[in-house]
Amino acid sequence: MMHPQPAGSPSPELVFETLNAYQRSAALLAAIELDLFRAIGEGPGDVASLARRCGSSERGVRILCDYLTVIGLLAKEGGRYHHTPTSSIFLDPRSPASVASAARFLGHEANGKQFTRLADVVRDGHTNLPGQGSVEPDNPIWVEFAKGIGPMVGVAASPLAATALEGLRGPVRVLDIAAGHGLFGIEVAKQHAEATITALDWTAVLEVAHDNARAAGIEDRYQLLPGSAFEVDYGGPYDIVLLTNFLHHYDVATCVGLLRKVRAALKPGGRAATLEFVPNEDRISPPIAAAFSLVMLANTPGGDAYTFRELEAMYVEAGYHGITSRPVPKSPHTVVMGLA
Amino acid sequence: MMHPQPAGSPSPELVFETLNAYQRSAALLAAIELDLFRAIGEGPGDVASLARRCGSSERGVRILCDYLTVIGLLAKEGGRYHHTPTSSIFLDPRSPASVASAARFLGHEANGKQFTRLADVVRDGHTNLPGQGSVEPDNPIWVEFAKGIGPMVGVAASPLAATALEGLRGPVRVLDIAAGHGLFGIEVAKQHAEATITALDWTAVLEVAHDNARAAGIEDRYQLLPGSAFEVDYGGPYDIVLLTNFLHHYDVATCVGLLRKVRAALKPGGRAATLEFVPNEDRISPPIAAAFSLVMLANTPGGDAYTFRELEAMYVEAGYHGITSRPVPKSPHTVVMGLA
Repeated sequence: MMHPQPAGSPSPELVFETLNAYQRSAALLAAIELDLFRAIGEGPGDVASLARRCGSSERGVRILCDYLTVIGLLAKEGGRYHHTPTSSIFLDPRSPASVASAARFLGHEANGKQFTRLADVVRDGHTNLPGQGSVEPDNPIWVEFAKGIGPMVGVAASPLAATALEGLRGPVRVLDIAAGHGLFGIEVAKQHAEATITALDWTAVLEVAHDNARAAGIEDRYQLLPGSAFEVDYGGPYDIVLLTNFLHHYDVATCVGLLRKVRAALKPGGRAATLEFVPNEDRISPPIAAAFSLVMLANTPGGDAYTFRELEAMYVEAGYHGITSRPVPKSPHTVVMGLA
Repeated sequence: MMHPQPAGSPSPELVFETLNAYQRSAALLAAIELDLFRAIGEGPGDVASLARRCGSSERGVRILCDYLTVIGLLAKEGGRYHHTPTSSIFLDPRSPASVASAARFLGHEANGKQFTRLADVVRDGHTNLPGQGSVEPDNPIWVEFAKGIGPMVGVAASPLAATALEGLRGPVRVLDIAAGHGLFGIEVAKQHAEATITALDWTAVLEVAHDNARAAGIEDRYQLLPGSAFEVDYGGPYDIVLLTNFLHHYDVATCVGLLRKVRAALKPGGRAATLEFVPNEDRISPPIAAAFSLVMLANTPGGDAYTFRELEAMYVEAGYHGITSRPVPKSPHTVVMGLA
């Protein structure tokens, strides 16, 4: 967790640990790759057993497990390792709430690349990745996102769907822009039997959403619209358009233009619902939402984690009214919604 | 700081933040490279001024400063950034206690390289770097260490020197093995006017120690002994041999062999004083010392952060007696000393 230093307690350790913080990411990625958290869950948790289970050296496993214990992702007692509440629920692949697959995206080399020369990015003020960076058309990173990140953001699906559907009756047409894993649109379909979903994303990504729609048993109300959100004809008119984790990749003008295009595809009074990292106006809290700006600096030409005031201004400029903000409980996300 | 999660509070955020922890290191390295902490200290701390001072974009500086604020390395008030106690003392290059130069070593690509494929290292149980890894003869990383790390470990120099010199009178001959920046031996010379220091390290590294000895005004009592600690003739006999941050790079047998060689160069009753990361017997506390094992796993063939019991056993096997352990206040280090 991010713990700003209390004023008045200068700490060279904080500098040392920050310079070495990359080792935490590396240790967690290694443990996930070696399937260590499954082995921990299955016990008995001594070094020799774990090493055998993970096809690894005892020295390596012992040192990795000690490190993970230091950073709060394992526990150790009597020389044996076992789960913490966090690792048991969120890292053991046997847990239905496991988010370990998020490593496929968050730990992907392409996501971290710009951080190896972050000073250059700060100088230039935008990504140095080729083209549009992470949002370059058909960037394969989004297939990893779709396959890996679902469990991590899934906690927001139910509140988002409930907010988007609130008070609606009868047939509801939904466009899920940049659907990714598709879980947000799928959740709308699950909550409302008369909802039909059109999922828009690049072709390779839509295969993941399609699989998830099939698995959820709502395939008959699920249509695919392959292409770029900026280029394809949305069809419509829709009652709801979902824009989840999408606007933050773009600069304000691009967001406004997109919101206008969305509004044109909505019925009067229809809803454009974004799920976003929304920092407070101070831009330094809450920590995860505020820190997310750096990822957009590194990986996009002009994206950002926008405050509610900024998002509201975009919606207003694009012709919406009734703009609301609802933080999602137990999640770093906020649902911001405007009416066409 | 490392904050193990309290039992009973499962947190997907901890997983998310650990996967992204590498961004903290990158942000701090970028800020040091852009000389941001000097610009913050000189004020006024608004984005436009900082961007000008750092030759950077306003967008980049704003996002970087917000991020550094989130992780506790800057403060923000009324849209302006200023120092925290930690950044003021330990990161502003105008501060005599600045440790920012440690980034030269801790942030060096060569140090982090193995962490990009840490699972392989855990499988194999040792570094996959060529040769002896970080301790390969004449590895240029140690010049960066000598030039950069001094301020960070300097806090331990005075207690180490005091412990090593305790009760000694008259001429004292000191051998400083793997002297690096030389600051430990130099501090002995400063505390004891009749101490003469022989600094042993690879040639390129000794230049740094030599510069520091000159700057400290003790050059006339400072001799250079270039080469490998495992190969050169130590000369002697010495009253004190310093082995600072050295044993952890090697396996137990190598450490015992080296301690024997050191003992042969000590006067009877002479002192072999190590400065080490010494975890408790549980190997998971205190956090910095315990976490250090992972660096040795990644970068050496067989090194480790040894517990006091392990170090004591090495000393005993090498023929020492009266082995003591003294944690250094306000430092992650411990002085372990044995008598020949």
